[in-house]
Amino acid sequence: MNMAFERDNILSMSGYVPGEQPTESNVIKLNTNENPYPASPRVTEALTAINIEELRRYPSPTASRFRQTAADYHGLSDYNILPTNGGDELLRLAITTFADPGETIGIAVPSYSLYPVLTEIQGCKLVSIPLLDDWNLPANFADRLNGAGAKLALLVNPHAPSGILTGAEQIIDIANSFEGVLLIDEAYVDFVDPENEYDLAPEVEQLDNILLLRTLSKGFSLAGLRFGYGMGPKTIIEPMMYKTRDSYNTDHISQQLATAALESADYARQTWSKVRSERLLLTEELQKLGLTCPPSQSNFLLAQAENEETAGDIVKRLKRENILIRYFDEDRLRDKLRITVGNPEQNQHLLDCLKSIIS
Amino acid sequence: MNMAFERDNILSMSGYVPGEQPTESNVIKLNTNENPYPASPRVTEALTAINIEELRRYPSPTASRFRQTAADYHGLSDYNILPTNGGDELLRLAITTFADPGETIGIAVPSYSLYPVLTEIQGCKLVSIPLLDDWNLPANFADRLNGAGAKLALLVNPHAPSGILTGAEQIIDIANSFEGVLLIDEAYVDFVDPENEYDLAPEVEQLDNILLLRTLSKGFSLAGLRFGYGMGPKTIIEPMMYKTRDSYNTDHISQQLATAALESADYARQTWSKVRSERLLLTEELQKLGLTCPPSQSNFLLAQAENEETAGDIVKRLKRENILIRYFDEDRLRDKLRITVGNPEQNQHLLDCLKSIIS
Repeated sequence: MNMAFERDNILSMSGYVPGEQPTESNVIKLNTNENPYPASPRVTEALTAINIEELRRYPSPTASRFRQTAADYHGLSDYNILPTNGGDELLRLAITTFADPGETIGIAVPSYSLYPVLTEIQGCKLVSIPLLDDWNLPANFADRLNGAGAKLALLVNPHAPSGILTGAEQIIDIANSFEGVLLIDEAYVDFVDPENEYDLAPEVEQLDNILLLRTLSKGFSLAGLRFGYGMGPKTIIEPMMYKTRDSYNTDHISQQLATAALESADYARQTWSKVRSERLLLTEELQKLGLTCPPSQSNFLLAQAENEETAGDIVKRLKRENILIRYFDEDRLRDKLRITVGNPEQNQHLLDCLKSIIS
Repeated sequence: MNMAFERDNILSMSGYVPGEQPTESNVIKLNTNENPYPASPRVTEALTAINIEELRRYPSPTASRFRQTAADYHGLSDYNILPTNGGDELLRLAITTFADPGETIGIAVPSYSLYPVLTEIQGCKLVSIPLLDDWNLPANFADRLNGAGAKLALLVNPHAPSGILTGAEQIIDIANSFEGVLLIDEAYVDFVDPENEYDLAPEVEQLDNILLLRTLSKGFSLAGLRFGYGMGPKTIIEPMMYKTRDSYNTDHISQQLATAALESADYARQTWSKVRSERLLLTEELQKLGLTCPPSQSNFLLAQAENEETAGDIVKRLKRENILIRYFDEDRLRDKLRITVGNPEQNQHLLDCLKSIIS
């Protein structure tokens, strides 16, 4: 019998463990997919403009100025936008709004390890559909979700941790076939090469069951700010906006800074282009070292080590050199390394260290 | 049949409606219990010290510096402290951690209208125990909670909207008798007169089922920042800290500012003293106008109007004069007005307007 006060499912579950966040400044941090370049000077201006007196009062409960800015940025209406305290809050809200305890949530595996944790907190069942060997979705993905009775599916695109992009048409097909709400976690979408012409935002006016997750953590260099947003049809956004969300979920300062970041997106866009160039170079250089990566459309690479032992060894030896990368002790990932694309100096230092480790 | 995607309980419920947050600066805002004085200059210094480059990285997932500062402030250990995105997040976390859907949550009524909303989102049952005529708790409060099988009780102290303080001894008695988790929402505790010697913080080392809610919104003049924290025994704090909480629930800037605010609590303490003096004056002046208030230990007063019609009329006529106060369309409150204690000029202006309305 549970003698603790917490619910049985909370007692028996394990929490999510975030990637290491060292406080030392001499660490090359390629483990949690931050943008290597800082946010736009307009964000600094917005920060400087904050007067402490403004904080005395409650913030806009709906983050109304940000909401309109994001709507304009995507060519949508403000009712399509749900500002959140980081992308993680949107994941939680989608689950607590659309899936009753005991109902089923679908994911593709491997994927973001927070999805099963949030599913467990809500007391939902999880159906995990394995990705193909090349990390693409199986053709019958929507059918399998429907077969399992899933009320909600969480799909990260570009995929983490492989970086593979599923095309917009395939996503639309899945949304059309799937009978529940399809959340597309686009945390890394800013790094997708524009030649892919991937943009699902206009689809929120066409599809009644799609919910897109965006965050300012990666593309806009504001992981420390905790600001994200959802985009979807009004009927999907409204219950989260006016019922399940904490009334003042985003604060005054982050609303101002996030608005400035989107308004000066051209600045961030330059960082995305630099990350893409570096991604290509790093992929080629890792390949030369025998560390093959699938073609990534994100700001990280999933490098294939010789075997599990080698992979673990590389992580440990890099750490001794003050370089952090991410290792997942999970099926299909134990012989692989997830490496965030850094700036040219960081990437070169990583490659130099890897050369001496591997040779 | 529910043709919408959201869960049945979400579809049928109504959301919480926050008090009006006008954007005009000429409004005298006595409707949402903000502190009339700004935060300490140390908070401004902390804001000025933020470099946008720091925001590129994720914040401390546990807000570790704030946690230690709060522990020192209360004479506790860091494991007794749970930093949250406003006090509202702690309410939600307590519910999602300690009460299974279908289980019962207890409250005293009338009270903070968010409690029933959060209960409904989790799919829990609510047992509402009426306060006595003088707004005190009935002597059999804990017995009635136990009789209803409540797993969690939410109690605001000082009480909102009356401002009445329940003494520490009575709270300890309730915690000892109650079989579930007792959350004491101390949102307004900073305004309690020190001569009451009310401090439950040391009790989190004595009682295994108590959880105290604190916020920087009122006492520390930082409603716009969204920062609060829970205090409790390790066994109560841990499941929320490491399992049900969003991994990065508080952002880097708010962590720094909240830490500075607690470190310079002496500054805030002067504002509490000023609010207490004004509270006394305002109570006396309202009394002279026939608007009697129970003795408040908070930063608001609950004024008794002649009847429901008069109460509604006063709210409307004050609004025409750009003065906002709060009206609750709820049993036992329809003939009353909740008025936040402002600064001397605001209070005088309010009294002048009330005089001309009532005469």
